[in-house]
Amino acid sequence: MADNKKLVEQITSMDEDFAKWYTDIVKKADLIDYSSVKGCMIIRPYGYAIWENIQHILDTRFKETGVENVYMPMFIPESLLNKEKDHVEGFAPEVAWVTHGGNERLAERMCVRPTSETLFCEHFANIVKSYRDLPKVYNQWCSVVRWEKTTRPFLRSREFLWQEGHTVHRTAEEAEARTVQMLNVYADFFEKDLGMPVIKGQKTDKEKFAGANATYTVEALRHDGKALQGGTSHNFGDGFARAFGIQYLDNDNTLKYCHETSWGVSTRIIGGIIMTHGDDSGLVLPPAVAPIQVIVIPVQQHKAGVIEAATKIHDTLAKAGIRVKMDISDQSPGWKFSEYEMKGVPLRIEIGPRDIADNKCVIVRRDNREKSFVSLDNLVEEVKSGLENLRVALYEKALKHREERTYVANTLDELKSIAEEKSGYIKAMWCGELDCEMKLKEEADVTSRCMPFDCEPVGDTCVCCGRAAKKLVYWGKAY
Amino acid sequence: MADNKKLVEQITSMDEDFAKWYTDIVKKADLIDYSSVKGCMIIRPYGYAIWENIQHILDTRFKETGVENVYMPMFIPESLLNKEKDHVEGFAPEVAWVTHGGNERLAERMCVRPTSETLFCEHFANIVKSYRDLPKVYNQWCSVVRWEKTTRPFLRSREFLWQEGHTVHRTAEEAEARTVQMLNVYADFFEKDLGMPVIKGQKTDKEKFAGANATYTVEALRHDGKALQGGTSHNFGDGFARAFGIQYLDNDNTLKYCHETSWGVSTRIIGGIIMTHGDDSGLVLPPAVAPIQVIVIPVQQHKAGVIEAATKIHDTLAKAGIRVKMDISDQSPGWKFSEYEMKGVPLRIEIGPRDIADNKCVIVRRDNREKSFVSLDNLVEEVKSGLENLRVALYEKALKHREERTYVANTLDELKSIAEEKSGYIKAMWCGELDCEMKLKEEADVTSRCMPFDCEPVGDTCVCCGRAAKKLVYWGKAY
Repeated sequence: MADNKKLVEQITSMDEDFAKWYTDIVKKADLIDYSSVKGCMIIRPYGYAIWENIQHILDTRFKETGVENVYMPMFIPESLLNKEKDHVEGFAPEVAWVTHGGNERLAERMCVRPTSETLFCEHFANIVKSYRDLPKVYNQWCSVVRWEKTTRPFLRSREFLWQEGHTVHRTAEEAEARTVQMLNVYADFFEKDLGMPVIKGQKTDKEKFAGANATYTVEALRHDGKALQGGTSHNFGDGFARAFGIQYLDNDNTLKYCHETSWGVSTRIIGGIIMTHGDDSGLVLPPAVAPIQVIVIPVQQHKAGVIEAATKIHDTLAKAGIRVKMDISDQSPGWKFSEYEMKGVPLRIEIGPRDIADNKCVIVRRDNREKSFVSLDNLVEEVKSGLENLRVALYEKALKHREERTYVANTLDELKSIAEEKSGYIKAMWCGELDCEMKLKEEADVTSRCMPFDCEPVGDTCVCCGRAAKKLVYWGKAY
Repeated sequence: MADNKKLVEQITSMDEDFAKWYTDIVKKADLIDYSSVKGCMIIRPYGYAIWENIQHILDTRFKETGVENVYMPMFIPESLLNKEKDHVEGFAPEVAWVTHGGNERLAERMCVRPTSETLFCEHFANIVKSYRDLPKVYNQWCSVVRWEKTTRPFLRSREFLWQEGHTVHRTAEEAEARTVQMLNVYADFFEKDLGMPVIKGQKTDKEKFAGANATYTVEALRHDGKALQGGTSHNFGDGFARAFGIQYLDNDNTLKYCHETSWGVSTRIIGGIIMTHGDDSGLVLPPAVAPIQVIVIPVQQHKAGVIEAATKIHDTLAKAGIRVKMDISDQSPGWKFSEYEMKGVPLRIEIGPRDIADNKCVIVRRDNREKSFVSLDNLVEEVKSGLENLRVALYEKALKHREERTYVANTLDELKSIAEEKSGYIKAMWCGELDCEMKLKEEADVTSRCMPFDCEPVGDTCVCCGRAAKKLVYWGKAY
C-alpha cells in the first residue's frame, strides 16, 4: 500500500531546478550552514553524524586490510611542495598560503595541505631503510584546502574533510595490488552500504592525479544524469620515491626505489548520496549511514498509554542496536512526518490508540512511502528487514536509472547529439590520443569519466578521429 | 616475584635529564617523528592509536551527556577574530596568517584557528532564535595552530589535535552546571582511565581563558614535580553572546542574551601520560588507552607446539575483546621484551615448552615487572584482573608521588625556599590580588595552578602580603 501524497512543499522540485533543489536540501535538512568564511561550510550535527558513520564503516574496513592511521602536519613548506614537478603544477594554483606566524613574516611560506603526498614521502624517506620496513600502509583523516573559485556544499568546498591513504611497497606488483584492493573497498562501500552503483575503471592521462602513473576511480551518476567521482586510488609507481629519495636495502644488498600508492574519499560522498537518492520531499538516507534509522512518532499522544507504547518501541529497537529516535514534541504528527522525511530517515513508525489495541504499529518506508501494519511481537525483525529492503531498493532504483541513462555513440555526430539532448553516460571508443579527448570536450562538452575495467567494447574505431580504438570510455558531464 | 633487571639501556635516565628522557621515549616508542615543518609533529601509528583510544572514550562520554559533534571551518577572518576584545588580545600574537589563495592576495587575511569560539558564536547567532532552540551542546575534534616559539612533542606544538566543546544556554545556572559537568567528565577520565590523579579547581583571573568569566581546570603532576594542565572548562557568562549578538526570545516574549561554555583537552594528554607513568625502560600505558594491552611472546619458538600455543593464547584473548598482539618475528625474546617495555604494553605473556607441559604461561606486569604463573584455563580472567590491578597501581603510585611532593608554605620565605629546593605543588593562601601573584612569579618562579574546589585552608593570611587570605592556591612550576 503506497501513499504518494507529497507532505513537504517547501523545497524546489528537482526537475524544476536541480541545483536549487540540492542547496534547499542541504540547508533544510540541517546538514550545513554558511559562515563569514567564504567557500567553506559549517557541517552541522546531522550532517556530521552522517560523516561519522561513513568514517566508522570505512575506517573499520581499512584496518581489516592492515591500514594504520597517522597524523601529518597541516602545513607544507613551499620547497617541499615543489619537489615533484607534476604534483606541484597540479596543486600550486589552488592552495592557501600562510606567510606570517604571529607578527613575524615566515622565512619560507607554507601552504595549507591540499593533499599530503609530499609530507608522507618525506616521512617514508626517513623511516624506510630496509625491505624489513616494508610495506607501510598508512591513512589519515583530516581536512584539506583547495582554493576553488566556485563552491557548492559537500561537492566543491574550499575546505573539506577526507581520508587520504598513503602506502609504500617493496615491489611494483604489491603497489598495484594495493591500488586495486582499496578501489574495491570503495566500490563495495558505495554499492552495498550507500546503495550507489558505481563503474570501476581507470582515468585517462589527462584526468589522472598529478604525479600518478595510473588513477583508478569509482564513478557514480547523479539523479540529473551528471557524473560524480566517488573515490580514487592512485598507483604512483616509483615517481615520488625518486623525487624524494625513498630507497630501501633489499635482501640482495642493493638499494632500490620503493613503489607507492594513495587513495581517498571525502565529504563529497554526502553530496553524492543526496543527489543519487534524494527526492522532492528531501533527503533519502541509506540505513548504513543514517544518523537516525527509525523515527517513532506517536499519534494522538495525549491519549492514555500512547507515549508509553512509543517509548517501549523506542527502547526495544535501541536495545537491538538500531539507531532510533522518538519525537514527543508538541508539533503535530503531520509536521513531524514532513520533518523526518526531509531528513531522510529510512523508516517511520506511527503508533496510536487503535494500533495499541491491535498490538500493532505502522511502518512507513521513506523511499516509496509504502505502509505496513506490523505486530509489535515481531518489531525488531520487521524493522531489520524493512531497512534491508530499503537498502536493496535504493540500489536497484539507482542502477535502473543509470542503465536508462547510459547511451552508446559510434560517431562524433551521434555523440554530440546525445550530449546535447540527453543527460547521462555516453559509452564510446577512443584512440587514446589527447587531441581527441580535447576535441570531445570542446565540441560536445563531455569529459572522460573512466575507462571501465569490465565492459564489452562497443566498436573498433575512435568515435572522434576514426582511427583504431584502444579503449572504451565512459564520457559524461561533470557538475 | 619481581624482576628489576633493567632490560633497555638506550634511553637517558629520567633522573639524569628528564627532558631528554622524554624526547627519547617519544622517538624510541615510535610515537612521533619530525618533518621539515618546524614546530609541528608527525603522529606515528602507535602514537595515533593512543589518541584514537582517548577520542573513543571521551567521545562516548560526551555523547552520553547529550553532546553533538560538528565541524567548523579551519579559518577565521581577521574581523571575526577581533570581535571579542580579551579573546583577540589573548590569541592574535600567536596565530598563523593566510594571506593568499592560489596566486591572489585575499581581500581580508584569515588566521588558522587557534580555537574556535568566534566561529561557534557567529553560528549560534545564526541558528538560535527562541528559547526552544536552547541549549546547543556542540563539540568538534580538529587540529588547531598556535605559533609557539619553543615546542615539545605533544606538550607544546605549533599544531595539535584536540576537541573543543562549545555550548549555548538559556540561563547562567545551566551554563555553570555544564561547565562543572564537563570538568567532571575530564577528571573522571584522567583518574579512572588514565590513572592520573588530578586536582579540580578554578584558575585565577590571570591564568583564565581569554574572554572567560571563569576557567575550571584539572591539574596533574609530572614525575619530575612540574605541574601539568590536564583539561579546562570555561564559563563565558554572556560576554561572547553580547559581543556576537547571540540572543533568544524567551517565553516571556523578551529578547535575552545566551550564556556559553567551552571546554577542551588535547594531544597534550599523551605527553601527560608519558610524564606521569613512564620509567627508565620507556612508556607505561594505562590499559584503557594502550593500543596493545597484551603482548604474547613465544620462548624457544622453533620448538614444536610453541607457536601454536602462543597463537591459541592470542586468539582466546582477542575473542574476549582484549587488544592483543603476538610477536613471532625472528628477533630474540630478550629484544622483544625490551621493545614492548619501551612501548609501554601493560602485560607481557611468555610461553615456552615447559609452560605448555604445565598448561601454564607467565604474565609479566609492565609497571613493576611482577611475574605470575597462570593456568591457561583461567587466562582471560587472569589477564583482565592483571590489567585492572595495573590500572589501580598506576593511580596509587601517582597519587603517592603527588602527596609526597605537595608542600605547605605559610610565609614568603618558606615558599621561596621550597620552590628553590623541591619540585612539586606548594599549597599557600592568597589575598586574591594580581600584585601578589606577580610577585610570587618574580621571586619564586611559581605560577598559580588552581584554587582547588575541595580543600581545607592552610592559614588565614596571604603568603605574600600578609593581608587577609581569600583563597587557597596550588602553586607550581609549569614546563
